[in-house]
Amino acid sequence: MTKRMGRVTADITITADGYVAGPNQTEERPFGDDGGDGWGDRLHAWMFETPEENRAEVEQMTAPGAVIMGRNMFGPVRGEWNRDWKGWWGDNPPFHAPVFVLTHYPRDQQPMDGGTTYHFVTDGLESALKQAREAAGDGDVMIQGGANTINQYLAAGLIDELRLHIVPITLGAGARLFDGVPPLNLEQVESRAASSVAHVTYRVLS
Amino acid sequence: MTKRMGRVTADITITADGYVAGPNQTEERPFGDDGGDGWGDRLHAWMFETPEENRAEVEQMTAPGAVIMGRNMFGPVRGEWNRDWKGWWGDNPPFHAPVFVLTHYPRDQQPMDGGTTYHFVTDGLESALKQAREAAGDGDVMIQGGANTINQYLAAGLIDELRLHIVPITLGAGARLFDGVPPLNLEQVESRAASSVAHVTYRVLS
Repeated sequence: MTKRMGRVTADITITADGYVAGPNQTEERPFGDDGGDGWGDRLHAWMFETPEENRAEVEQMTAPGAVIMGRNMFGPVRGEWNRDWKGWWGDNPPFHAPVFVLTHYPRDQQPMDGGTTYHFVTDGLESALKQAREAAGDGDVMIQGGANTINQYLAAGLIDELRLHIVPITLGAGARLFDGVPPLNLEQVESRAASSVAHVTYRVLS
Repeated sequence: MTKRMGRVTADITITADGYVAGPNQTEERPFGDDGGDGWGDRLHAWMFETPEENRAEVEQMTAPGAVIMGRNMFGPVRGEWNRDWKGWWGDNPPFHAPVFVLTHYPRDQQPMDGGTTYHFVTDGLESALKQAREAAGDGDVMIQGGANTINQYLAAGLIDELRLHIVPITLGAGARLFDGVPPLNLEQVESRAASSVAHVTYRVLS
């Protein structure tokens, strides 16, 4: 019997023109100039303003066995870890699972409340995926973002399933999903319309 | 009593990464390098492979009272009209309505079979829209494409409703919807999932 291996998924909210964040991202405005509060209020209104009708999609986002994220998504610290930064999500992050943060600067793992532990991976995408797969067991590994990290995994052919939540705004600039990714063949495996968002799930065929 | 005025709509098939055609468009491959036959077979598979389940969307595409299209969408002729070119669609085009073609080069109107007449407009977007509105009466005016023409109308704030048919491929390059368009507030007024396409209709708020 071979052990079941979980899928590698990416799950992200994008504008109708494909952006996951606006331009000029800063610590005070991690989602950049997005026409809102800079914390993604307009991008993520579907989660907070109509939670009931989007319950399935939100639950799926918090179900993975392990998470991978880029350095910029973890926080604003650049270069060496010279600040006591523990992510944007407070003492009890919503991941409740091991989180592998891609970085060029080594750092000891950082346990948090609620089952989240941040692990800092300095030897690249594939190593992070290998470690996340081991940590997830037969659970899924979710590439959490941002766009740059998902695009790198897509370009490397390492993502099985892409779950997009397409929201009714355009930004015209910023961090764009699929930017620099070679052409992909996808299979639309699920699509569901909610009142202010279109959920579309693709399997990545090649 | 004021006369009802039709809406100005744009209706276009886009890839998951927002392209309406691939790069390197030519007369032989009007949709460019799209991984298919160059005539948009992969983009428009949803219309031809599953016509029954997409009947409503296809019917809506052919319902406008008048149509506007860019010069490149009409044909490959550049500069003066020095060839006997009557569009890509043969003697009986599927528009069955007046079609206003944006061009810098004057040309007499060209009647076709089935109610289509091509009118050539040399004095810009707004003039084309004014003429199309008059021709459409209380019917809708549809901006047919390509991306560049729709983007110009979007940037000018002249489109009321945007109907997107999002198909499960990415192209990574080519003619992209929303390219160069300032940020928009949209309202998702309809969304419907078919088996290999997600139909999303937006009202353009600002």
